[in-house]
Amino acid sequence: MEKFENYIDSKKEIFLEELKDFLRIPSVSSQSSKNQDTARCARWVANALKDAKMENIELLETGGHPIVYADWLHAGEKYPTILIYGHYDVQPAEPLDLWSSPPFEPVIVDGKIFARGTADDKGQLYTHIKAVESLIETEGKLPCNIKFMIEGEEECGSSHLEDFIINNAKKLECDYAIVSDTEWFAEGLPTICYALRGICYTELTVTGPNRDLHSGSFGGAVDNPINVLCQIISKLIDENGKIAVPGLYDKVLELSQQERDAFKKLPYNEEKYMKDLGVKALNGEKGFTTLERNWARPSLDVNGIYGGYTEEGAKTVLPSIATAKISIRLVANQNSEEVYELLNKYIQKIAPDTVKAELTYIHGGEPVMVDMTEKPIKACEIALKKAFGVEPVFMREGGSIGIVALFGSVLNAPTVLMGLGLPTDNIHSPNENFSLDNFYGGIKASAFFLKEISNEQYA
Amino acid sequence: MEKFENYIDSKKEIFLEELKDFLRIPSVSSQSSKNQDTARCARWVANALKDAKMENIELLETGGHPIVYADWLHAGEKYPTILIYGHYDVQPAEPLDLWSSPPFEPVIVDGKIFARGTADDKGQLYTHIKAVESLIETEGKLPCNIKFMIEGEEECGSSHLEDFIINNAKKLECDYAIVSDTEWFAEGLPTICYALRGICYTELTVTGPNRDLHSGSFGGAVDNPINVLCQIISKLIDENGKIAVPGLYDKVLELSQQERDAFKKLPYNEEKYMKDLGVKALNGEKGFTTLERNWARPSLDVNGIYGGYTEEGAKTVLPSIATAKISIRLVANQNSEEVYELLNKYIQKIAPDTVKAELTYIHGGEPVMVDMTEKPIKACEIALKKAFGVEPVFMREGGSIGIVALFGSVLNAPTVLMGLGLPTDNIHSPNENFSLDNFYGGIKASAFFLKEISNEQYA
Repeated sequence: MEKFENYIDSKKEIFLEELKDFLRIPSVSSQSSKNQDTARCARWVANALKDAKMENIELLETGGHPIVYADWLHAGEKYPTILIYGHYDVQPAEPLDLWSSPPFEPVIVDGKIFARGTADDKGQLYTHIKAVESLIETEGKLPCNIKFMIEGEEECGSSHLEDFIINNAKKLECDYAIVSDTEWFAEGLPTICYALRGICYTELTVTGPNRDLHSGSFGGAVDNPINVLCQIISKLIDENGKIAVPGLYDKVLELSQQERDAFKKLPYNEEKYMKDLGVKALNGEKGFTTLERNWARPSLDVNGIYGGYTEEGAKTVLPSIATAKISIRLVANQNSEEVYELLNKYIQKIAPDTVKAELTYIHGGEPVMVDMTEKPIKACEIALKKAFGVEPVFMREGGSIGIVALFGSVLNAPTVLMGLGLPTDNIHSPNENFSLDNFYGGIKASAFFLKEISNEQYA
Repeated sequence: MEKFENYIDSKKEIFLEELKDFLRIPSVSSQSSKNQDTARCARWVANALKDAKMENIELLETGGHPIVYADWLHAGEKYPTILIYGHYDVQPAEPLDLWSSPPFEPVIVDGKIFARGTADDKGQLYTHIKAVESLIETEGKLPCNIKFMIEGEEECGSSHLEDFIINNAKKLECDYAIVSDTEWFAEGLPTICYALRGICYTELTVTGPNRDLHSGSFGGAVDNPINVLCQIISKLIDENGKIAVPGLYDKVLELSQQERDAFKKLPYNEEKYMKDLGVKALNGEKGFTTLERNWARPSLDVNGIYGGYTEEGAKTVLPSIATAKISIRLVANQNSEEVYELLNKYIQKIAPDTVKAELTYIHGGEPVMVDMTEKPIKACEIALKKAFGVEPVFMREGGSIGIVALFGSVLNAPTVLMGLGLPTDNIHSPNENFSLDNFYGGIKASAFFLKEISNEQYA
């Protein structure tokens, strides 16, 4: 056992009490009535970083809730600089009556701590603060340079984050970033997420006649924008479940056999998955499993559609306009703006001349993929195995995490997603909780990671 | 000239003043603040019928605004009984600031009378009241038996009308009905409408997963109800613009060559039609002209569609439910409930097993067609020619008129649509107006019609 492990074991009670203090602050960033609490929480984090012997601690203004910054840069240039990201704000606790205990009064039940923000993200974030403390207390120094960047707007859209990172790129300069804000594939199965999908989010507006028409007086003569919109959407995915947009797959990085084999070994139960969703069958791109489709293949979803009369009963209208929000999830090495151009070109080609079809780019985010054989992933794998005694598994994620894409594009830093949550944590829901085993193990894993990433054998 | 014609010519000023009195009553049936005016208007109509020597005048309660009934039944069994329908209620006048003169203060400009309700339907309705007066005053009797049924809820949905007709079927018994509440194909072109389309109005709900999902975490794996709904809708119309529902055309009465030839002769300008609608191209069933498609062929329109996130910006949701309101316009000899069954059967067949597709029947109305060679149409043709000196044209109508279907189904009475309006009348809009030539000519046409329909040569 390393010294820092003994230190962590000896401080369990204290660390837990500290975490409870952290959780008692209702830092709900989206509720302005909680603004004073959210500000207090930022100061609490700054103090915790100070207690952990971090330096240059600042509350940096963003226009919204501040970002807490701290660093420790004495390892020297020979050793890497690691940026640790987390967020001190939490989701609203409502509906309160569905909680078994008050959301801001943490309680321990069956080895789990229950409170809003336990897993998302206070408990996970706090493991890193306690890891650097444990290393400094037991070894007098850190094995690498460290920068903390803890934001307070993750649960309300991180609207100031991109500007902040761009404006503070020099201050945030690093070799790698680490984020603990995701979850394990299953309990007892430490998990490294090495790829996230990106997104290209658009809105399609189909305009037909210059006014709403009576569907009796014009039906059959004038093309109906809703019918046309549905025709266009139906042509976006072909009979094999592939997106029919020409060129869309040109840059797609194909899954390696190694990845496909690894996914197959995960404890995934398709019957249980379908039962939980209440569906009798799944659907997607032919030739790929469900996990492959969701994690590693582009997918197209209509996220919203609207046109004509949608209230109760009937109105015999042939509307002037129909709109749909259409998004495509992207995988490495696709680019959101390129995909928008391809989609728009295809839609203009298939839209009939009876209507005007306009595709607006709403937003985009780039896919992220860290090579599994690269240093930070390797270091993370070893750290998790040492901390939890179990060989970690590798997964991808179907969604996007904006911060990871930003670290890649602005700071040119690969990010390791060393999530510590469990699928049963109820994040964003009542009775949010976090496993104490994962909390204590996570502190060790963070410390091991910092040591491993600094080990010259990976340099 | 017949005596009644001279009588009508001699009374022009008086008839016009009476019509102005009628128009001054703001009988807006949908506005409860106007309920006293609407009630007063019903009494005004009853008095007008009394002045025209009609008998058995009643204001019949409906649960809403009353129906004015009157009759004259002294022609004897040898002669037909004609039911004259009209409505004394009007559309709201708002927006008032778009009127060139106050909506309930009639004025004459360039041979047209401007006020709310001039064409729809007070002016048209009043021609029949003045026609029976003219005949009785000049001939001492009517050539046939007459029943008037003047409703006060046409502009607010006629919600009590069906029950009323069913409950008063004996009282309303007749050989034919006549309605003047439509318009000519063009100015100077007296028009007989001999067919109306029916409707089968449904709502389709597609349910996928049991809750809204994150489109990143599930996109590509779980079928999206909006995508599926669009696929289903896209399969409802084939590449030739035909409705793809098996069996849908089995009962469709094909257009006769005579009808097609007649439609072709109408002064219809497709360029002008498209320009007015602001579209570059039209679309519909291949092998038919625009008028044929709209008047005499079934058509399918999505009248409304809704699902997922439809507000500003983006939400990455894969929704649980998507719905669409889908209606099919019907032509003789289709039946709305049969069409619903066919549509539902087809949708159940094409819906994938990843979702549940439920089709609800919202309402239906049957198509109506009066044989152009039958007695009432022939009588109407002669009457219009005599009154206006122009050979009338024949048209169909793409929409439905509920009362006509009810007269057919409940009273078993064919209905003649001897509309007197013009496309420039601005019904339902500011500056509604009615041509005085059509008003005076309409009185004569109504009288000629009653004489022609009683002529034994058509019996």
